[in-house]
Amino acid sequence: MKLYERPGFPNPARIRIVLAEKKLDQDIEYVNVDLIGAEHKALPYLSRNPLGVLPALELDDGTVLAESTAITEYLDNLDGNPVLTGRTAREKGMIHMMQRRAESEVLDAVGHYFHHATGGLGPVLQAFKSPDWAGRKEWGEREGRRALAGMRYFDEVLGRTSFVAGPTFSMADITLLAGLWFAGAAGLAVPEDLAALKAWQGRVSELPSVKHRGGQDFLPEDLKRMGF
Amino acid sequence: MKLYERPGFPNPARIRIVLAEKKLDQDIEYVNVDLIGAEHKALPYLSRNPLGVLPALELDDGTVLAESTAITEYLDNLDGNPVLTGRTAREKGMIHMMQRRAESEVLDAVGHYFHHATGGLGPVLQAFKSPDWAGRKEWGEREGRRALAGMRYFDEVLGRTSFVAGPTFSMADITLLAGLWFAGAAGLAVPEDLAALKAWQGRVSELPSVKHRGGQDFLPEDLKRMGF
Ligand SMILES: N[C@@H](CCC(=O)N[C@@H](CS)C(=O)NCC(=O)O)C(=O)O
Ligand SMILES: N[C@@H](CCC(=O)N[C@@H](CS)C(=O)NCC(=O)O)C(=O)O
Repeated sequence: MKLYERPGFPNPARIRIVLAEKKLDQDIEYVNVDLIGAEHKALPYLSRNPLGVLPALELDDGTVLAESTAITEYLDNLDGNPVLTGRTAREKGMIHMMQRRAESEVLDAVGHYFHHATGGLGPVLQAFKSPDWAGRKEWGEREGRRALAGMRYFDEVLGRTSFVAGPTFSMADITLLAGLWFAGAAGLAVPEDLAALKAWQGRVSELPSVKHRGGQDFLPEDLKRMGF
Repeated sequence: MKLYERPGFPNPARIRIVLAEKKLDQDIEYVNVDLIGAEHKALPYLSRNPLGVLPALELDDGTVLAESTAITEYLDNLDGNPVLTGRTAREKGMIHMMQRRAESEVLDAVGHYFHHATGGLGPVLQAFKSPDWAGRKEWGEREGRRALAGMRYFDEVLGRTSFVAGPTFSMADITLLAGLWFAGAAGLAVPEDLAALKAWQGRVSELPSVKHRGGQDFLPEDLKRMGF
């Protein structure tokens, strides 16, 4: 299998964590796509994922899966432990609900803030992401406020349960973690009073799969130069 | 089980179709929530789904599942045939990918158009959905164009396969169908040249589960009065 990705970016990081949890990180060829130079907005990448975002997983028969949730479903169902997407109908329902909320209320909201209210990844990509429209900055800032409200919601949830979707680590935790990581990089720090969220973040950041993100510990040089 | 929903609305319709496919539509108590009067933006509904949207499924032990994808995962995994979310890892991956695309590129984009660029469901709900901000209409119109581009993408897909995620009817078809139904109601007709999309829509609209949407054939009177 080939993973089209970019080390240091939040959605690819979701898959790096899944691969490490499932002990599949040695079975993958990693292909580094130049996100900052907008390589993912042109052919041949667009023939793999017409939505022009990372990551995408190419199977050995040439099939390409995109969308981190779908890639996670695939990898998680290849074999047994640990199970990240739920065993019973009820677990699957809970995990999909919470992962969807983490995506829409935090991870995607942060992405909208980052690409619209800030300079994002720089001028080459900005031309694709958000051509000038009058409401752009205002919308980005609304999305930033929505991300902060999302963090507050998850703080309440994590005051009641150990992990985002119940008593075990799951796909929902991975999505929220990627969201908080992205928020930090984009300048939306977790508010100090969200103690349960911060405690959870500290705990899950110590998991080996998260700590090493499948062999990728550090931000690449080009992101560091951009101030991340 | 109790389904909090609103007959005639696209996301609740997704669950009505799933229930009919799974032959579970008799096991459910349907609770009609007054969307137009914004009943879903206040307690007690917000204690069931803090995001304040429909549908939500309350299980017999009191657990509430929201997010149509998560509810579908739950119901689909309660028992056997037909399977709407995939049998193998590969099928699950494909179905989740295509359902996510149908949601983000069509169904949700239409919703943003409807609630921001048009009068939406009227003044009571508008106060919650989209308080005045300068870029509101412009953003809604961008989202409408994105929905039309999404239809064009699915037209290409359906030129190659019988159903949205491959050779069988799945959750991905249900999401796209809800998106097109909503688009029609919101005034975004499917462009005439999208022949494969229109042919697919004609075919799946004849499925018993879709035709009768779990016992609910007609738009309720209040929606008809609003011009739907
Ligand atoms: N819904 C997608 C989102 C993927 C996404 O937005 N990826 C980012 C990298 S973290 C990206 O490609 N951004 C560049 C762009 O949007 O042009 C998923 O779940 O994988
Ligand atoms: N992501 C949610 C979306 C639910 C949704 O937007 N539902 C609509 C009805 S079709 C709604 O509640 N709209 C009213 C509102 O947004 O206030 C899902 O998959 O169920």
